[in-house]
Amino acid sequence: MAVISRTHTIRTSGQGDARDVTPLVLDELARSGLTAGLATVSVVGSTAAVTTIEFEPGAVADLNALLERLAPRRGEYQHHLRWGDDNGSSHVRAALVGPSVTIPFAEGRLLVGTWQQIMLLELDTKGRRREVVVQLMGEA
Amino acid sequence: MAVISRTHTIRTSGQGDARDVTPLVLDELARSGLTAGLATVSVVGSTAAVTTIEFEPGAVADLNALLERLAPRRGEYQHHLRWGDDNGSSHVRAALVGPSVTIPFAEGRLLVGTWQQIMLLELDTKGRRREVVVQLMGEA
Amino acid sequence: MAVISRTHTIRTSGQGDARDVTPLVLDELARSGLTAGLATVSVVGSTAAVTTIEFEPGAVADLNALLERLAPRRGEYQHHLRWGDDNGSSHVRAALVGPSVTIPFAEGRLLVGTWQQIMLLELDTKGRRREVVVQLMGEA
Repeated sequence: MAVISRTHTIRTSGQGDARDVTPLVLDELARSGLTAGLATVSVVGSTAAVTTIEFEPGAVADLNALLERLAPRRGEYQHHLRWGDDNGSSHVRAALVGPSVTIPFAEGRLLVGTWQQIMLLELDTKGRRREVVVQLMGEA
Repeated sequence: MAVISRTHTIRTSGQGDARDVTPLVLDELARSGLTAGLATVSVVGSTAAVTTIEFEPGAVADLNALLERLAPRRGEYQHHLRWGDDNGSSHVRAALVGPSVTIPFAEGRLLVGTWQQIMLLELDTKGRRREVVVQLMGEA
Repeated sequence: MAVISRTHTIRTSGQGDARDVTPLVLDELARSGLTAGLATVSVVGSTAAVTTIEFEPGAVADLNALLERLAPRRGEYQHHLRWGDDNGSSHVRAALVGPSVTIPFAEGRLLVGTWQQIMLLELDTKGRRREVVVQLMGEA
């Protein structure tokens, strides 16, 4: 059994900016020599999220439109009153979607579908320098 | 430490079809001889989800009704324009709920409540042949 | 590789009561001597959730307000008709947010942000005695 953890820095452009981070996981898995275990992708911070989606611009736009309906960027948030921030929508969206995703791998293959990618979703109102952790735990 | 991964095929009937997959996890755990570790259940593909719920028809119907309010099946989606698909609602619902759930086990017991089950939720507009991965990682 | 599982009992006051459980994870990690692996926090039961958030009263209130819009406590739920319960809103909120969160640790540090905490969120309509599982799996 082994644990491999690597942190990647990704610069984002602001709310709704989405990145396919699947290649980071696949590269790490290929290099690791691990055959079976768990791949975790997480983002450091409380205004971004990680989930899976068919990573094409339409589906990503649809998800962002849903999040805008649920938690409008220009809405009123108690977080704003407290801190003078403007990213209340970012915090509640991130808490809802979640900061990490865990996907099993077996026989050296990550068990996702052909049209299923692991996505970092920036939710903050400003662009950020994000730290995305890719961790593999498993056996060779 | 050991990793046990098994993929189950489940045929679903379309959007909202829910299946209790807890027995698959409990069976695997009993056979494994593992006493402490992490159980992960994930679905391959971007139009289904896995979460936990009290698996009774009322609560499942309530969740489906919520998802229909959030992302109506007959709504307009950019994913449709791009691909001629009709499952934009499926993609955004799946990204929101998430493709996997991780539950610890200890002393040989899965740490869920009596009224808490692990559920595969079909979100695609058509019935699908789903691959559900049950993975146990832990120590004997 | 080692697995450490500990169940903590937390008494909550009812729907919307939020608790920062990050210190429980940090304490366990410090005592464990583990340097790299996966930390999982899960709640037993189907009417509470675990996620990460900037744990300040404004952001927590904003999340609770969002969940009230999505699944109003006084709404109509099929779960009520079936069981005579009043916690249909609790079940669907919990299934949406999810029962657990997994966060990697490396070099002995939990990989969360300074303003990102792991939160137990009570969603049941009554106060409950909650069992929160903190599990560390990894290598020394």
